[in-house]
Parts: sequence; structure tokens; C-alpha cells
Amino acid sequence: MGSVHVRNIVRHIPEADLVAICDIRLDVAQAVADELGIQRVVKDYHELLADPEIEAVLIATSTPTHAFIIKDVAKAGKQIFCEKPLAMELSEIDEALEAVEKAGVKLQVGFNRRFDKSFQKVKEIVSSGEIGRPCILHIISRDPEVPDMDFMRVSGGMFLDMTIHDFDMARFQVGEVEEVYAMGGVLIEPELEEFGDIDTNIVTLKFANGAVGAIDNSRQAVYGYDQRLEVFCSNGTAMAENDTENTAVKANPEGFHASRIPHFFMNRYAPCYVEEVRQFIECVREDKPTPINGQDGRAAVVLGYAAGKSLRENRPVKISEIG
Amino acid sequence: MGSVHVRNIVRHIPEADLVAICDIRLDVAQAVADELGIQRVVKDYHELLADPEIEAVLIATSTPTHAFIIKDVAKAGKQIFCEKPLAMELSEIDEALEAVEKAGVKLQVGFNRRFDKSFQKVKEIVSSGEIGRPCILHIISRDPEVPDMDFMRVSGGMFLDMTIHDFDMARFQVGEVEEVYAMGGVLIEPELEEFGDIDTNIVTLKFANGAVGAIDNSRQAVYGYDQRLEVFCSNGTAMAENDTENTAVKANPEGFHASRIPHFFMNRYAPCYVEEVRQFIECVREDKPTPINGQDGRAAVVLGYAAGKSLRENRPVKISEIG
Amino acid sequence: MGSVHVRNIVRHIPEADLVAICDIRLDVAQAVADELGIQRVVKDYHELLADPEIEAVLIATSTPTHAFIIKDVAKAGKQIFCEKPLAMELSEIDEALEAVEKAGVKLQVGFNRRFDKSFQKVKEIVSSGEIGRPCILHIISRDPEVPDMDFMRVSGGMFLDMTIHDFDMARFQVGEVEEVYAMGGVLIEPELEEFGDIDTNIVTLKFANGAVGAIDNSRQAVYGYDQRLEVFCSNGTAMAENDTENTAVKANPEGFHASRIPHFFMNRYAPCYVEEVRQFIECVREDKPTPINGQDGRAAVVLGYAAGKSLRENRPVKISEIG
Amino acid sequence: MGSVHVRNIVRHIPEADLVAICDIRLDVAQAVADELGIQRVVKDYHELLADPEIEAVLIATSTPTHAFIIKDVAKAGKQIFCEKPLAMELSEIDEALEAVEKAGVKLQVGFNRRFDKSFQKVKEIVSSGEIGRPCILHIISRDPEVPDMDFMRVSGGMFLDMTIHDFDMARFQVGEVEEVYAMGGVLIEPELEEFGDIDTNIVTLKFANGAVGAIDNSRQAVYGYDQRLEVFCSNGTAMAENDTENTAVKANPEGFHASRIPHFFMNRYAPCYVEEVRQFIECVREDKPTPINGQDGRAAVVLGYAAGKSLRENRPVKISEIG
Repeated sequence: MGSVHVRNIVRHIPEADLVAICDIRLDVAQAVADELGIQRVVKDYHELLADPEIEAVLIATSTPTHAFIIKDVAKAGKQIFCEKPLAMELSEIDEALEAVEKAGVKLQVGFNRRFDKSFQKVKEIVSSGEIGRPCILHIISRDPEVPDMDFMRVSGGMFLDMTIHDFDMARFQVGEVEEVYAMGGVLIEPELEEFGDIDTNIVTLKFANGAVGAIDNSRQAVYGYDQRLEVFCSNGTAMAENDTENTAVKANPEGFHASRIPHFFMNRYAPCYVEEVRQFIECVREDKPTPINGQDGRAAVVLGYAAGKSLRENRPVKISEIG
Repeated sequence: MGSVHVRNIVRHIPEADLVAICDIRLDVAQAVADELGIQRVVKDYHELLADPEIEAVLIATSTPTHAFIIKDVAKAGKQIFCEKPLAMELSEIDEALEAVEKAGVKLQVGFNRRFDKSFQKVKEIVSSGEIGRPCILHIISRDPEVPDMDFMRVSGGMFLDMTIHDFDMARFQVGEVEEVYAMGGVLIEPELEEFGDIDTNIVTLKFANGAVGAIDNSRQAVYGYDQRLEVFCSNGTAMAENDTENTAVKANPEGFHASRIPHFFMNRYAPCYVEEVRQFIECVREDKPTPINGQDGRAAVVLGYAAGKSLRENRPVKISEIG
Repeated sequence: MGSVHVRNIVRHIPEADLVAICDIRLDVAQAVADELGIQRVVKDYHELLADPEIEAVLIATSTPTHAFIIKDVAKAGKQIFCEKPLAMELSEIDEALEAVEKAGVKLQVGFNRRFDKSFQKVKEIVSSGEIGRPCILHIISRDPEVPDMDFMRVSGGMFLDMTIHDFDMARFQVGEVEEVYAMGGVLIEPELEEFGDIDTNIVTLKFANGAVGAIDNSRQAVYGYDQRLEVFCSNGTAMAENDTENTAVKANPEGFHASRIPHFFMNRYAPCYVEEVRQFIECVREDKPTPINGQDGRAAVVLGYAAGKSLRENRPVKISEIG
Repeated sequence: MGSVHVRNIVRHIPEADLVAICDIRLDVAQAVADELGIQRVVKDYHELLADPEIEAVLIATSTPTHAFIIKDVAKAGKQIFCEKPLAMELSEIDEALEAVEKAGVKLQVGFNRRFDKSFQKVKEIVSSGEIGRPCILHIISRDPEVPDMDFMRVSGGMFLDMTIHDFDMARFQVGEVEEVYAMGGVLIEPELEEFGDIDTNIVTLKFANGAVGAIDNSRQAVYGYDQRLEVFCSNGTAMAENDTENTAVKANPEGFHASRIPHFFMNRYAPCYVEEVRQFIECVREDKPTPINGQDGRAAVVLGYAAGKSLRENRPVKISEIG
């Protein structure tokens, strides 16, 4: 993810001035820097924190390191963009957010899907009130294939690795969640049972405003990266359908045949990765609040915990029971 | 519904010989009979049961009368087609089914949606195994507008009046359900609260084969009678989209604009009402089992009860807890 | 076609009173009459013309007989519905129309497609003026398969048998045509060359209002009966897409797969056959002008002649050159 | 266009080494060079031709300069990518192509739409033969709004400025054209009449392989940049539909509402501008023939001339009549 952000900044966000890349694998950082003409490459991020010319830091390291890096960067008084999830442990998140608040710096969490033009259009329609109050949310979020098992063993599990995006989207579209109920199991990849993960689930949501919702997830949608949602309202509905790989349609005696949907998140959400950082930089420049803050980052993790508890105990879990 | 079936039989099922109509409102029956050239009209159905020439009876009376009429017709040794639901009380259903079994007659329940060509195509795709095992079922089933309150007060409530069709569809598409969890409330029509009904809900389902499902219902989809479903499987997915009122599309500077979906069940499911009776008559003629039997009729009611219990107690309810 | 109309009238147009069927093949007529409970069957239509109780006559005989039957029926003072085309010879059409005018009876021609709800919606959008003036018309009209050669030899050729519907649709949607240019050939069925017919063509149209148009036809669309049109206007566009056999969609690793379009005109246009006769009867009852009159029937034949001439001479042909 | 190509090369085609920009407006070139970190900026292109390190030249100057620059670049022995059209005068094109041939250098013409993934997919389907032989081509190609009149006066007219892309696409999809017939007029912007241009037209095509085609063009599609095509074949059809701005759909009591299509060519064809240059560079590197050569560039201009002649003389014009 780090190199994606670096390329995006250099190529598509001219208003940002990328001054240095940091990676403990120095050769990896150097290769990217060479490709893009970046002068400074460091191995230890503390070096950069000491540089008064650096205004903001984008953190795209492995999840377990997020919280302590945030704390260090906040202490150094720099603005922060951090990839999701903020951390796996709520206590770590709370400490990091406290440091951010104390330092008075900005924090944006990398829920890139909020910047998808179709999801934004849905929110715009719903927020305008023109189709009444939200009643039912349905999010379909399915990966094209099970990631490799090495990753899966450390992914944090379905709810914190994958559904976390949908929890954030649910809050983005409809508002605060009060209760969740999760059901699911292993229907695709039996190896997941070894470490207690699942590949298929439905999580239902009760929102504070009375609306109800369902998220369905699968690790294997063989026809592509299936990302859809609907916000059904009292006077209409708003839906975001999938993009398509191309718009060609073939007809033959068997019927009509159209292309798959784009294969993976980098294709589908490519413009979102640019836009989220562009907006972050704009917020820093113009001293505005970031569009997704630390509490948003925390709330999605809390929902992940609640869903996990619900699945284990087979009962609806109130969000207030967590953390 | 009775007059719909009568017209369908006379106009579209020439292999059936409709010999008499019975209605306690004799004038209503007479008007239909006159329109269609039917000779015999009676007020008391027992009259017809005594007629040895009558082979089968189609029951489209009010729900509370279904069970005892079934018992009488079964005793008379005639084949039975009965509208859904079989009854509101499980004990009544059980007595009726016992009578049917004892008499050795056929019983078909009027779950007309099973005869929808798109839902049948989905089932055909899924049953063929070509897209793997079912993982996630999602049924969207939304009425265009809240029926009038006089009906709503005696409708049996959301789960037995409306969701019952979706419970049957879930069993038709994926198989037996083991557990349900229901959530919902009043988001559209406050008057429903007076008698404890709801207008918006999500019911999740755990199937015996490991699949999970969600049904979402609303009493008010202002854009038409919204009837969709998806059976997501391990190697693909199968969906049934809505029909449209017409295929005209207008484009202007605001975008593309297409027609509403057909307004109500009589438009959407019109061919199903013909086909279900046509197949019933074929089963009688050729002495085959009916496509939807008494146990199917009972199972949908049991799911309705379980959903009601789940909503009241806010917990997942096993089907084995009911009846 | 005769039996289609008879069934439609009996089953779907209760306001009409069908009193007799006439067919020179008396047994065919008798079979239909028996099926539908019609009392009177005759072999010679003159018998019916003498009956003062008969108000209107629907003519669905072979094309060469249309003109003289129209003349006889008109002389008998009865209202007339006649299948398209009115005749193959313009002189016969002119004589028939003269007889109709002289008798002061109504004449409706069976251009059933004008009653298609999607084509009507397009016309309604365009006529309202909300998307500006018509600029470009495109009609796609393709049969699913080449009819058998016995029929093709007497069909009148592509332009008078098949394109004639599209000529009428062009006039219905955009208005009078001033010039046509036709191109095409035999790309599907070589046997057509024996009698100078074609199976593939494009006919362009110049309308009196300045708009331009193209009709494309094929005798073999293996994916179903392809019937689409677009009226592109100065401030938007209006299109009618195909209906579908069902709305099921399957996705697998190859992409998305939807059903064929309905196979033939009886499926696609079934409701139009009812509606055109229903409106005819309404016009008779309420003494209103018919929606498609004799001049409309003549104009489509003239366009067919012009297209034929254009194809033979490979040049644009003005409509004023014909007849 | 020049700056688009420069940005694309620097950002998306790392295998190319962009060494210099040339523009007679030196300040414009300098600004782009500064933005992208390009070292060398020149005003006179002859300077670059003398540089032995420069292997290839991309020409994106105004059309009247194309031919003589091509000749100079060819003489200097460098590979050439040139924007369309090659020139307005056939004699100039012929001289330029002669120079290219004599010098033995490569020439690629910038018909970017050939690199559109959907149009390519259609070609792939048709070329595979799986749906039989091409019978009917239909291209819809409509600009979102009339360009400003200053441009229109020097644009070369509808056929050479706009339809030229569609002529190339027709050849790309179906093959050589033998005859065209053009009709059209001014339905949108009366000012065009002053200099004899049109804003609306249909051009029909007869292909050497017997297929027929129609291109329709408009200068004003208020709902977006409308770019569609269909290749109807003897055993099926292949279509490319429009992309959409986003996939959000709103439903309300009026029906379903979707977004406009992307507004202009830079949005719709953005990836094509990268891909055409990427392939050109690959052809240079690997010494392969370019995907679109000088004869392709010439053929599209010839078709434009033939269409103009056809419109003026209102008759079909054989391609052999031109040049």
C-alpha cells in the first residue's frame, strides 16, 4: 500500500510535496524512490520526525505498528494519515487517539471506499432527504478469491480485515450502529477452520435512527470483486451497482453475455486512493477537519469486535457491550 | 383471488373443466359465472362435495376457513388446491394435513411465486450445480404501498402475511431452514404500532446445508413492487432482477431515466397464478405429487412463527423450538 | 392471425360481441368456434355482410384478398379492421380506400406495434417536446430466423413483408418521410437470390421535418426477436430496449449471462394484438377516428415501393416518385 | 493534445524516455516541462531531428503542419507517431507517406479509439468467428456539445473532424469500405450553415465483404459523450455500450434514474491515449509494425472526402471515385 500512495502522490497530487520515503526494507524504498525521482530514503522513521520541514506523515505499515507510530508522529506535531485498521486492540487505539488529541494534530484513517464516486452519489441522494428516511441498508462485499493462507493467518479475521470496510460504509451511509448480529461459517476454504476464521457471513445491523441493515461477505466471488450497496428509504431507494471491466455485450443463441467485474480492489478503488490523500492534504493545507477521523477508525473496529462476539455467542450484541 | 383463479381456468387452462363456483356471497359468484358462462353457482360448498362428478376443489376463501374446508373436502375424497397460508394456527394446519393424508388426496398450496419464470431459472442454475454450492441467499420483497388498515388489522402480521412468501421461496431455492433471527420496526406507518405489526424488517436464515440468508421486507416501495433475489454460490451467483413496466429509457442532461417496476402482485405474478393451477390439474390428471405440498405450506407458517418469536425476544430462534 | 384475433376478442375484449367466424376452410373455423363457444361459422363472407346485426368486420385473410373484401365490406356499410399490408398493388389500395371513403365507414390497419407500451412511451416522450426536436431515428428490427422458403416466395419481399412495420413505426415516431435510400443483400440464406429477395438491409430516411433515420433489418437474429428503436433529439434521447424472456442473470468466471429475448412476434407483441382491436372497437362504439387509418396503411406500402426502387437503382428515391 | 501525451508518457509509460518537448510557444512547453521534470525544451523541431539520441517523435501539432513535419522527421530517420488526421489534402498525405516509406521508418496514426477495451472486445468476439460473419455495423458517435465556432470554422467539417474516427472504427471492426452514402443537415446550431458545415448526419457504408453499415453523428448529445457500436453477425451480435459516470441508481415514484455518461473524450478515452503510445513505443523497441499505419490514416480521410461528395451530390459515392 505504501508504494501505491507514493506513486499516487507523485503522479496525481501535485499540490503535495513528497520529500521522503521510509521503510525498514531500505532497498524496497530505494527502488520506488528511484522510479519516481524522490531524493530522500530512510530506514528509521524517527529521522523524519526530527525534520521540521515535514508537515505530514502517511502511515502504511503493518497493522501492529500503527498505534505506536501514530503516537510518535503525534508527539512530533505532524499531521497523520493512517491506513485502516488503526489497530487490533482497542486499548492501543485509545492510547493513539489520546496522543493525537493531546498533540492537536489531524488524523485521517484510510477508509478509501468513502471516496468512491458511486457510493458518494448514493450518500448524496440519501442525505438530501429527497427519498425520505433510510429504512434498510444492504451491503454486498465479496472478494474475488481467498487470499493466501499466510496472510489469512494474521489478517485479524473476517470482521476486522474485510467487514471493517463495510462497517465504516454502513456508518457513512446510515449513521451510528447500536447492535449487531453475525452469522456465518466456512463454506469455501476448509483450511480456515484451523484458526477459527470464516469465509462467508451475514452481519445484521440496528441503527440508532431505527433503520436496519445487512452486510453479506464472501471470500470468493469467482466473477470478480463484487461491491454493491442499497439504501432503501421510505420514499425511494438508492443503489450502487458494480463497475464492469468493459461494456461489450455478446449475444448468441444462449442469450446475452457481458464481462466480469474488475478483479480486485486496486482496480475498483484506484481513484479513491488518490482522492483520500488529496483531501487529507487539502485539510492539512486549509486547516479543516479530516473527512474520516480517529473516532471513525475506532468505531469500525468496535463493530468488528461486536460482530465477532455475536458470532461466537450466537446472539445480538449491543455496541455498548464493547470497549 | 377466487375470481382470478376462475377467470384463469376458463380462459387459459382448457384442459380443466370448471363446473361450479361457490361463494357465501351468492351474487358475487353469480356475476363471475355470468361473465364466463359457468352454469352452476352454489352458496354452500357441501353441496359440491356431494357431487361425484367433481374431482378437485380450489379453496380461495379467507384464511380462518381454510383448515376446516380442507378437512371436509379431503373427507369427500376430492383433490385440493388451497391458497396460502394454510391457517394461522399450527394445530389447525396439523389437523387439516392429517385429514388429507388419511383421505389419500392431493393438496397443493398456492405459493404462486415458485412458478415465476425468473425465480425458476435461478433455481435451475443453482440446482444444476454448475455454480457450486449455495452460500448466501438474499431476497428483497417489498410491497408498493401499505395496504389499508382494515386489512392490516387482520392480516396476521408481517411475517405470516408477507414474509411467508419469502420463507417459501428461501426453502424452494436453498432448502430447509434451521434457525431464524428477525429485526425490524415501524418506519413508515405509525398506525401499525397500535396492533403490534411492523412495516420494515430483515430476517436472517441459517440453512441446514450451511448457507446463510437474509430476507428484507418493506410495506412501501414507492417505485413499484420490488421482488428480487440472489443465490450466491461458491463458483458464481444467480440473480433474478425485477421486471419493468416498459423498456423505454429517456436521457437528458440529468442522466438516464427508466420506468417504474410493475405496481403490484397481480401484474408481476399474473402468469404464475395460471401456471400453478395448470400444474395442479396436471398432477391430478396424471396422478403425480403436487409441486408444493402440505408440508411446504406448514413449513412456511412455522418460519413465520419463529420470526415473530425472534423479533419479540430479540434472539435467534431455532425452528425446532416451534410447534 | 385470424384465430389469434378471435381468441383475444373472446377472452380479453368483453365489450366486443363476436357473433361469427368466416373461413373458406370451414373445419378450421369450426374448431376455433368450438373451443371458444362461438355459435355461427360460415364459409362465404357475403353471408355475414347481409346480416344487419353485424356492425364491424375484422379481415385477416391472405394479402391478395384484402382489397376486394374491404370494398365489399365497405359497400355493406360495416366498419373495417384489416391486417397489414392493405395490398401489394397501390392501385388496389387506392380503390379500396375510395370505397371506404364513399361508404363513410371506418378502416383501421393492423400495425400492431404502434400499441407496444415501450414504443408508445418513446413517442410520448418525444411528442411532449421535453427533449427537443427529433434529429436521428434508428430502428432495429430483426427476425429470429428466416421463415420457410414457401412463405418467402410469396411474402412480397423484405420491404413489403418486414420493413413495412418499420416504415409505419418511423412515421409514427417522427412523421412523414420524403426520401429513402436502401442498401442490402443476401448474407444469410443464399436461396433468397433465386427470387430476388434479400435478408439484410439498411434503409435510410429523410423526414419532412429535417430529421434523418436508419432502419436495419435482418432475417436471422439467433438471440431472439430483436426490436429496438431510438429517437435522438436536440435535447436528449428516447430509446426502447428489448424485453427479456426472464430476468435471471448468472455470473461465473466468464462474466455475466442473461436470457435471450423473446423468440417471436407473438410473444413480444401479444398485448398489442389485443389493444389494437380493443381500440378499434372503442372507436366504432364511440364513433371516433381509428388510430391508424387507410392513408397510414397506404403510406407504408409506398415507402416499401420506394425502398425497392432505391435498392434496384442504387440511388436515393423521393417518395413523390412513387404512385 | 501534446501535453496529454507528455503527461501520459512521463507518468504511465516508464519504458519510454521522454527527452525533450518542442513547441513554437516556448512558454507553454516550458510550463509542462517544469511540472514533469523534463530537462530539454525547444522551439524549433529541427534541433531535435539533429540529435542522434532521439529515436522517435510524437507529432501533436495543428493538422496543416502534420504532413511537412512527417516528411522532415522521416528524412531524419526517426520513428513517427502522428495525431489524426494526417492532413486535409490527400496529395499532402501521399507525399508524407512516400517520405515515410522511402525512409523506412514506422508511422502510427493517433486513432486512439481502437485501443478502447470495449471496442477491442467487440472486435475480438467478431474476429474469432464465433458469431458468424459480419452483416450490419452501427456506430453511434455523438459529441456532448457543439464546439465553439472559432474551432468549427477550421475543423475541416463534420466528416473530416468527427466522422473520421468512426470511419476508422468501421474499417477496424468490419474491413474495407467500397461505397458510402451521406445524409444530414443543420438541426442544432444554425450558425454552421454560414460555412457549410452540418451537425447531424447518417453515413451508410457498403463493405467489400458484403456487410452494410450506418454511422450516426450529432454535435450535441446533452446527456454526455455517446459512443456505442454494434456489429450484428449471422450467428449473434456484439455491442459496446457507454461507460457511465458512476453506477448509482435512484428509484422514486417516477421510476429509475441513473447517471449521465462521461462528458467528453478525455474522460471516455483516457486509457486509450496511454495505450496507443505504449504500443507505439513497443513497436519501435521490438521493431514490429505499428497497429495503425499510414494507409489507415489515409483511408479514413478518403472516406471523409467520399462522404462529403455524397452529401453534396445526394448519391452513393464509390471510394474508387476519390483520390
